Amino acid sequence: MTSHEAFCVLNSGDRPAHLNVTIFYETRDPVGPYRCEVPARRTKHFRFNELRDPEPIPLGTPYASVIESDQPVVVQHTRLDSRQAENALLSTIAFPAGDG
Amino acid sequence: MTSHEAFCVLNSGDRPAHLNVTIFYETRDPVGPYRCEVPARRTKHFRFNELRDPEPIPLGTPYASVIESDQPVVVQHTRLDSRQAENALLSTIAFPAGDG
Amino acid sequence: MTSHEAFCVLNSGDRPAHLNVTIFYETRDPVGPYRCEVPARRTKHFRFNELRDPEPIPLGTPYASVIESDQPVVVQHTRLDSRQAENALLSTIAFPAGDG
Amino acid sequence: MTSHEAFCVLNSGDRPAHLNVTIFYETRDPVGPYRCEVPARRTKHFRFNELRDPEPIPLGTPYASVIESDQPVVVQHTRLDSRQAENALLSTIAFPAGDG
Repeated sequence: MTSHEAFCVLNSGDRPAHLNVTIFYETRDPVGPYRCEVPARRTKHFRFNELRDPEPIPLGTPYASVIESDQPVVVQHTRLDSRQAENALLSTIAFPAGDG
Repeated sequence: MTSHEAFCVLNSGDRPAHLNVTIFYETRDPVGPYRCEVPARRTKHFRFNELRDPEPIPLGTPYASVIESDQPVVVQHTRLDSRQAENALLSTIAFPAGDG
Repeated sequence: MTSHEAFCVLNSGDRPAHLNVTIFYETRDPVGPYRCEVPARRTKHFRFNELRDPEPIPLGTPYASVIESDQPVVVQHTRLDSRQAENALLSTIAFPAGDG
Repeated sequence: MTSHEAFCVLNSGDRPAHLNVTIFYETRDPVGPYRCEVPARRTKHFRFNELRDPEPIPLGTPYASVIESDQPVVVQHTRLDSRQAENALLSTIAFPAGDG
Protein backbone atom coordinates (compact mmCIF):
# COMPACT_ATOMS: atom_id res chain seq x y z
CA MET A 1 0.00 0.00 0.00
CA THR A 2 1.29 3.39 -0.97
CA SER A 3 -0.15 6.61 0.31
CA HIS A 4 0.26 9.83 -1.56
CA GLU A 5 -0.03 13.14 0.15
CA ALA A 6 -1.08 16.02 -2.01
CA PHE A 7 -2.12 19.62 -1.75
CA CYS A 8 -4.82 21.26 -3.76
CA VAL A 9 -4.68 24.97 -4.51
CA LEU A 10 -7.55 27.19 -5.57
CA ASN A 11 -6.61 30.46 -7.21
CA SER A 12 -9.92 32.24 -7.79
CA GLY A 13 -8.23 35.50 -8.66
CA ASP A 14 -7.33 37.08 -11.95
CA ARG A 15 -3.57 36.73 -11.72
CA PRO A 16 -1.39 33.60 -11.74
CA ALA A 17 -0.17 32.56 -8.30
CA HIS A 18 3.47 31.67 -7.79
CA LEU A 19 4.01 29.33 -4.86
CA ASN A 20 7.14 28.60 -2.88
CA VAL A 21 6.93 25.32 -1.00
CA THR A 22 9.39 24.61 1.79
CA ILE A 23 9.66 21.12 3.31
CA PHE A 24 10.59 20.82 6.97
CA TYR A 25 12.06 17.65 8.48
CA GLU A 26 12.65 16.28 11.94
CA THR A 27 16.40 15.83 11.81
CA ARG A 28 17.78 18.01 9.05
CA ASP A 29 17.48 21.50 7.62
CA PRO A 30 14.45 22.48 5.56
CA VAL A 31 14.62 22.05 1.79
CA GLY A 32 13.24 24.47 -0.76
CA PRO A 33 11.82 26.42 -2.26
CA TYR A 34 10.00 24.11 -4.60
CA ARG A 35 8.31 26.38 -7.13
CA CYS A 36 4.77 25.80 -8.36
CA GLU A 37 2.35 27.93 -10.36
CA VAL A 38 -1.42 28.00 -10.42
CA PRO A 39 -2.97 29.94 -13.31
CA ALA A 40 -5.62 32.59 -12.73
CA ARG A 41 -9.11 31.22 -12.04
CA ARG A 42 -7.90 27.62 -11.82
CA THR A 43 -7.54 24.85 -9.26
CA LYS A 44 -4.54 22.56 -9.30
CA HIS A 45 -3.38 19.43 -7.44
CA PHE A 46 0.23 18.77 -6.52
CA ARG A 47 1.53 15.48 -5.14
CA PHE A 48 4.38 15.85 -2.69
CA ASN A 49 6.08 12.79 -4.16
CA GLU A 50 6.21 14.55 -7.51
CA LEU A 51 8.24 17.46 -6.16
CA ARG A 52 11.69 16.98 -7.71
CA ASP A 53 13.58 20.26 -7.64
CA PRO A 54 15.71 20.88 -5.58
CA GLU A 55 15.32 17.23 -4.47
CA PRO A 56 12.63 14.54 -3.94
CA ILE A 57 11.17 14.07 -0.47
CA PRO A 58 12.61 10.84 0.97
CA LEU A 59 10.03 8.02 1.28
CA GLY A 60 8.80 7.25 4.77
CA THR A 61 10.24 10.41 6.25
CA PRO A 62 7.99 12.65 8.33
CA TYR A 63 7.80 16.16 6.99
CA ALA A 64 5.77 19.32 7.15
CA SER A 65 5.28 21.95 4.49
CA VAL A 66 4.99 25.71 4.37
CA ILE A 67 3.40 27.10 1.23
CA GLU A 68 3.84 30.77 0.37
CA SER A 69 2.02 32.48 -2.45
CA ASP A 70 2.26 35.89 -4.08
CA GLN A 71 -1.53 35.85 -4.58
CA PRO A 72 -4.29 34.94 -2.14
CA VAL A 73 -5.08 31.25 -2.55
CA VAL A 74 -6.84 28.50 -0.63
CA VAL A 75 -4.81 25.38 0.07
CA GLN A 76 -6.23 22.02 1.06
CA HIS A 77 -4.03 19.19 2.19
CA THR A 78 -5.18 15.68 1.28
CA ARG A 79 -3.93 12.17 1.68
CA LEU A 80 -4.71 9.74 -1.09
CA ASP A 81 -4.84 6.08 -0.19
CA SER A 82 -3.94 3.74 -3.04
CA ARG A 83 -6.38 1.12 -1.84
CA GLN A 84 -9.16 3.53 -2.76
CA ALA A 85 -7.94 5.39 -5.76
CA GLU A 86 -8.39 9.11 -5.35
CA ASN A 87 -10.44 8.62 -2.21
CA ALA A 88 -9.14 11.11 0.29
CA LEU A 89 -9.10 9.87 3.86
CA LEU A 90 -7.68 13.00 5.33
CA SER A 91 -8.16 16.60 4.55
CA THR A 92 -7.11 19.66 6.41
CA ILE A 93 -7.29 23.29 5.50
CA ALA A 94 -3.76 24.63 5.68
CA PHE A 95 -3.06 27.10 8.43
CA PRO A 96 -3.09 30.57 6.90
CA ALA A 97 0.03 32.53 7.84
CA GLY A 98 -0.01 36.28 8.26
CA ASP A 99 2.01 37.04 5.17
CA GLY A 100 3.05 35.06 2.13
CA MET B 1 -18.24 2.63 -6.09
CA THR B 2 -19.51 6.14 -6.50
CA SER B 3 -18.56 8.97 -4.22
CA HIS B 4 -20.73 11.99 -3.84
CA GLU B 5 -19.36 15.27 -2.66
CA ALA B 6 -21.81 17.55 -0.97
CA PHE B 7 -21.92 20.77 0.97
CA CYS B 8 -24.12 21.43 3.93
CA VAL B 9 -25.22 24.96 4.74
CA LEU B 10 -26.52 26.23 8.06
CA ASN B 11 -28.49 29.46 7.95
CA SER B 12 -29.27 30.24 11.58
CA GLY B 13 -30.45 33.73 10.78
CA ASP B 14 -33.89 35.16 10.22
CA ARG B 15 -33.59 35.84 6.50
CA PRO B 16 -33.29 33.40 3.58
CA ALA B 17 -29.73 33.07 2.25
CA HIS B 18 -29.11 33.21 -1.48
CA LEU B 19 -25.96 31.40 -2.51
CA ASN B 20 -23.90 31.70 -5.65
CA VAL B 21 -21.67 28.68 -6.24
CA THR B 22 -18.81 28.90 -8.70
CA ILE B 23 -16.95 25.78 -9.80
CA PHE B 24 -13.27 26.06 -10.67
CA TYR B 25 -11.43 23.56 -12.84
CA GLU B 26 -7.84 22.71 -13.64
CA THR B 27 -7.88 23.25 -17.38
CA ARG B 28 -10.84 25.47 -18.24
CA ASP B 29 -12.63 28.58 -17.10
CA PRO B 30 -14.80 28.54 -14.00
CA VAL B 31 -18.51 27.84 -14.41
CA GLY B 32 -21.29 29.55 -12.55
CA PRO B 33 -22.99 30.91 -10.71
CA TYR B 34 -25.12 27.98 -9.65
CA ARG B 35 -27.88 29.48 -7.51
CA CYS B 36 -29.08 27.86 -4.28
CA GLU B 37 -31.29 29.08 -1.46
CA VAL B 38 -31.40 28.16 2.20
CA PRO B 39 -34.48 29.33 4.09
CA ALA B 40 -34.18 31.24 7.36
CA ARG B 41 -33.39 29.06 10.38
CA ARG B 42 -32.80 25.95 8.30
CA THR B 43 -29.97 23.64 7.31
CA LYS B 44 -29.75 22.21 3.82
CA HIS B 45 -27.57 19.69 1.94
CA PHE B 46 -26.57 20.10 -1.67
CA ARG B 47 -24.86 17.42 -3.74
CA PHE B 48 -22.43 18.75 -6.29
CA ASN B 49 -23.58 16.12 -8.78
CA GLU B 50 -27.08 17.53 -8.57
CA LEU B 51 -26.01 20.96 -9.73
CA ARG B 52 -27.47 21.29 -13.23
CA ASP B 53 -27.71 24.93 -14.21
CA PRO B 54 -25.73 26.29 -16.04
CA GLU B 55 -24.25 22.78 -16.56
CA PRO B 56 -23.48 19.54 -14.65
CA ILE B 57 -20.00 19.04 -13.23
CA PRO B 58 -18.23 16.45 -15.41
CA LEU B 59 -17.66 13.09 -13.65
CA GLY B 60 -14.12 12.37 -12.54
CA THR B 61 -12.93 15.91 -13.05
CA PRO B 62 -11.10 17.66 -10.21
CA TYR B 63 -12.80 20.87 -9.17
CA ALA B 64 -12.98 23.39 -6.39
CA SER B 65 -15.88 25.53 -5.32
CA VAL B 66 -16.38 29.07 -4.08
CA ILE B 67 -19.65 29.68 -2.29
CA GLU B 68 -20.88 33.23 -1.79
CA SER B 69 -23.88 34.12 0.31
CA ASP B 70 -25.86 37.30 0.90
CA GLN B 71 -26.38 36.22 4.54
CA PRO B 72 -23.88 34.87 7.04
CA VAL B 73 -23.94 31.07 6.83
CA VAL B 74 -21.75 28.15 7.89
CA VAL B 75 -20.72 25.75 5.14
CA GLN B 76 -19.39 22.25 5.66
CA HIS B 77 -17.97 20.22 2.83
CA THR B 78 -18.52 16.45 3.01
CA ARG B 79 -17.79 13.44 0.90
CA LEU B 80 -20.32 10.66 0.95
CA ASP B 81 -19.06 7.18 0.15
CA SER B 82 -21.67 4.95 -1.42
CA ARG B 83 -20.25 1.88 0.27
CA GLN B 84 -21.40 3.35 3.56
CA ALA B 85 -24.57 5.21 2.76
CA GLU B 86 -24.50 8.69 4.23
CA ASN B 87 -21.33 7.97 6.14
CA ALA B 88 -19.10 10.93 5.63
CA LEU B 89 -15.42 10.10 5.36
CA LEU B 90 -14.26 13.60 4.88
CA SER B 91 -15.40 16.86 6.25
CA THR B 92 -13.85 20.25 6.10
CA ILE B 93 -15.12 23.60 7.19
CA ALA B 94 -15.04 25.84 4.17
CA PHE B 95 -12.54 28.65 4.23
CA PRO B 96 -14.44 31.82 5.11
CA ALA B 97 -13.72 34.62 2.67
CA GLY B 98 -13.69 38.24 3.72
CA ASP B 99 -16.82 39.22 1.84
CA GLY B 100 -19.57 37.32 0.13
CA MET C 1 -24.52 -0.18 11.99
CA THR C 2 -25.30 2.81 14.13
CA SER C 3 -23.32 6.01 14.02
CA HIS C 4 -23.29 8.39 16.91
CA GLU C 5 -22.45 12.00 16.46
CA ALA C 6 -21.01 13.72 19.47
CA PHE C 7 -19.41 16.96 20.46
CA CYS C 8 -16.54 17.33 22.86
CA VAL C 9 -16.10 20.51 24.85
CA LEU C 10 -12.94 21.73 26.54
CA ASN C 11 -13.38 24.31 29.26
CA SER C 12 -9.87 25.21 30.33
CA GLY C 13 -11.03 28.20 32.35
CA ASP C 14 -11.74 28.61 36.02
CA ARG C 15 -15.50 28.98 35.77
CA PRO C 16 -18.17 26.44 34.76
CA ALA C 17 -19.44 26.89 31.20
CA HIS C 18 -23.17 26.84 30.53
CA LEU C 19 -24.00 25.79 26.96
CA ASN C 20 -27.14 26.31 24.96
CA VAL C 21 -27.41 23.92 22.02
CA THR C 22 -29.88 24.64 19.23
CA ILE C 23 -30.64 22.00 16.60
CA PHE C 24 -31.51 23.16 13.08
CA TYR C 25 -33.41 21.00 10.61
CA GLU C 26 -34.10 21.07 6.90
CA THR C 27 -37.87 21.20 6.97
CA ARG C 28 -38.97 22.46 10.35
CA ASP C 29 -38.17 25.11 12.92
CA PRO C 30 -35.08 24.80 15.11
CA VAL C 31 -35.44 23.13 18.50
CA GLY C 32 -33.78 24.24 21.69
CA PRO C 33 -32.10 25.28 23.73
CA TYR C 34 -30.74 22.02 25.07
CA ARG C 35 -28.77 22.95 28.18
CA CYS C 36 -25.39 21.41 29.02
CA GLU C 37 -22.74 22.30 31.57
CA VAL C 38 -18.99 21.74 31.55
CA PRO C 39 -17.25 22.26 34.89
CA ALA C 40 -14.20 24.49 35.20
CA ARG C 41 -10.95 22.91 33.98
CA ARG C 42 -12.70 19.87 32.56
CA THR C 43 -13.44 18.28 29.19
CA LYS C 44 -16.76 16.61 28.49
CA HIS C 45 -18.35 14.58 25.67
CA PHE C 46 -21.99 14.87 24.70
CA ARG C 47 -23.76 12.53 22.28
CA PHE C 48 -26.44 14.19 20.20
CA ASN C 49 -28.66 11.11 20.55
CA GLU C 50 -28.60 11.58 24.30
CA LEU C 51 -30.11 15.05 24.12
CA ARG C 52 -33.63 14.63 25.51
CA ASP C 53 -34.98 17.97 26.64
CA PRO C 54 -36.93 19.62 25.00
CA GLU C 55 -37.08 16.57 22.67
CA PRO C 56 -34.83 13.86 21.15
CA ILE C 57 -33.36 14.40 17.69
CA PRO C 58 -35.26 12.16 15.24
CA LEU C 59 -33.17 9.27 13.87
CA GLY C 60 -31.99 9.59 10.31
CA THR C 61 -32.84 13.26 10.08
CA PRO C 62 -30.19 15.69 8.86
CA TYR C 63 -29.48 18.43 11.37
CA ALA C 64 -26.96 21.08 12.26
CA SER C 65 -26.13 22.48 15.66
CA VAL C 66 -25.27 25.86 17.08
CA ILE C 67 -23.56 25.78 20.46
CA GLU C 68 -23.45 28.93 22.57
CA SER C 69 -21.46 29.22 25.76
CA ASP C 70 -21.19 31.84 28.49
CA GLN C 71 -17.48 31.02 28.83
CA PRO C 72 -14.82 30.60 26.14
CA VAL C 73 -14.64 26.91 25.23
CA VAL C 74 -13.29 24.78 22.42
CA VAL C 75 -15.79 22.47 20.72
CA GLN C 76 -14.88 19.49 18.56
CA HIS C 77 -17.50 17.65 16.58
CA THR C 78 -16.93 13.90 16.16
CA ARG C 79 -18.71 10.99 14.61
CA LEU C 80 -18.37 7.65 16.34
CA ASP C 81 -18.80 4.57 14.21
CA SER C 82 -20.13 1.58 16.11
CA ARG C 83 -18.09 -0.83 14.06
CA GLN C 84 -15.01 0.66 15.66
CA ALA C 85 -16.09 1.59 19.14
CA GLU C 86 -14.90 5.07 20.06
CA ASN C 87 -12.92 5.36 16.85
CA ALA C 88 -13.71 8.73 15.41
CA LEU C 89 -13.85 8.83 11.64
CA LEU C 90 -14.70 12.44 11.38
CA SER C 91 -13.71 15.43 13.37
CA THR C 92 -14.20 19.07 12.72
CA ILE C 93 -13.47 22.07 14.84
CA ALA C 94 -16.72 23.93 15.25
CA PHE C 95 -16.94 27.28 13.57
CA PRO C 96 -16.42 29.92 16.25
CA ALA C 97 -19.15 32.54 16.18
CA GLY C 98 -18.47 36.14 17.08
CA ASP C 99 -20.44 36.10 20.30
CA GLY C 100 -21.92 33.39 22.47
CA MET D 1 -6.31 -2.76 18.07
CA THR D 2 -4.47 0.12 19.65
CA SER D 3 -4.89 3.68 18.55
CA HIS D 4 -2.24 6.26 19.18
CA GLU D 5 -3.06 9.89 19.28
CA ALA D 6 -0.24 12.22 18.44
CA PHE D 7 0.42 15.85 17.74
CA CYS D 8 2.78 17.17 15.16
CA VAL D 9 4.47 20.53 15.61
CA LEU D 10 6.04 22.67 12.93
CA ASN D 11 8.49 25.29 14.10
CA SER D 12 9.47 27.17 10.96
CA GLY D 13 11.20 29.92 12.92
CA ASP D 14 14.80 30.48 13.85
CA ARG D 15 14.51 29.83 17.57
CA PRO D 16 13.72 26.60 19.45
CA ALA D 17 10.13 26.40 20.67
CA HIS D 18 9.43 25.32 24.24
CA LEU D 19 5.98 23.77 24.64
CA ASN D 20 3.90 23.27 27.75
CA VAL D 21 1.22 20.63 27.29
CA THR D 22 -1.66 20.42 29.77
CA ILE D 23 -4.02 17.43 29.75
CA PHE D 24 -7.64 17.97 30.75
CA TYR D 25 -9.90 15.16 31.96
CA GLU D 26 -13.61 14.69 32.52
CA THR D 27 -13.56 13.86 36.21
CA ARG D 28 -10.31 15.13 37.70
CA ASP D 29 -8.04 18.13 37.68
CA PRO D 30 -5.82 18.83 34.69
CA VAL D 31 -2.29 17.45 34.72
CA GLY D 32 0.80 19.26 33.50
CA PRO D 33 2.73 20.89 32.21
CA TYR D 34 4.40 18.23 30.13
CA ARG D 35 7.42 19.93 28.58
CA CYS D 36 8.45 19.39 24.94
CA GLU D 37 10.93 21.15 22.68
CA VAL D 38 10.97 21.58 18.94
CA PRO D 39 14.26 22.84 17.48
CA ALA D 40 14.38 25.81 15.12
CA ARG D 41 13.34 25.01 11.54
CA ARG D 42 12.20 21.49 12.40
CA THR D 43 9.01 19.45 12.59
CA LYS D 44 8.47 16.94 15.38
CA HIS D 45 5.86 14.32 16.29
CA PHE D 46 4.84 13.57 19.86
CA ARG D 47 2.66 10.64 20.89
CA PHE D 48 0.38 11.34 23.81
CA ASN D 49 1.04 7.85 25.19
CA GLU D 50 4.73 8.68 25.38
CA LEU D 51 4.17 11.61 27.70
CA ARG D 52 5.56 10.42 31.05
CA ASP D 53 6.35 13.41 33.25
CA PRO D 54 4.52 14.33 35.49
CA GLU D 55 2.52 11.13 34.78
CA PRO D 56 1.30 8.96 31.88
CA ILE D 57 -2.18 9.53 30.46
CA PRO D 58 -4.40 6.65 31.66
CA LEU D 59 -5.44 4.26 28.87
CA GLY D 60 -9.02 4.54 27.67
CA THR D 61 -9.63 7.82 29.43
CA PRO D 62 -11.07 10.73 27.43
CA TYR D 63 -8.86 13.77 27.54
CA ALA D 64 -8.22 17.07 25.82
CA SER D 65 -4.97 18.96 25.50
CA VAL D 66 -3.88 22.57 25.56
CA ILE D 67 -0.51 23.26 24.01
CA GLU D 68 1.28 26.52 24.77
CA SER D 69 4.47 27.61 23.03
CA ASP D 70 6.94 30.45 23.54
CA GLN D 71 7.39 30.65 19.75
CA PRO D 72 4.77 30.68 16.99
CA VAL D 73 4.21 27.10 15.85
CA VAL D 74 1.64 25.13 13.91
CA VAL D 75 0.16 22.11 15.67
CA GLN D 76 -1.68 19.27 13.96
CA HIS D 77 -3.49 16.62 15.94
CA THR D 78 -3.53 13.13 14.43
CA ARG D 79 -4.81 9.72 15.37
CA LEU D 80 -2.76 6.77 14.26
CA ASP D 81 -4.57 3.47 13.81
CA SER D 82 -2.39 0.43 14.40
CA ARG D 83 -4.24 -1.57 11.79
CA GLN D 84 -2.83 0.79 9.19
CA ALA D 85 0.58 1.68 10.48
CA GLU D 86 1.15 5.42 10.37
CA ASN D 87 -2.03 5.97 8.44
CA ALA D 88 -3.76 8.90 10.02
CA LEU D 89 -7.54 8.63 10.14
CA LEU D 90 -8.12 11.89 11.85
CA SER D 91 -6.42 15.20 11.67
CA THR D 92 -7.44 18.51 13.01
CA ILE D 93 -5.62 21.79 13.16
CA ALA D 94 -5.43 22.76 16.79
CA PHE D 95 -7.45 25.78 17.79
CA PRO D 96 -5.05 28.73 18.05
CA ALA D 97 -5.42 30.57 21.34
CA GLY D 98 -4.84 34.29 21.62
CA ASP D 99 -1.60 34.02 23.55
CA GLY D 100 0.80 31.21 24.36
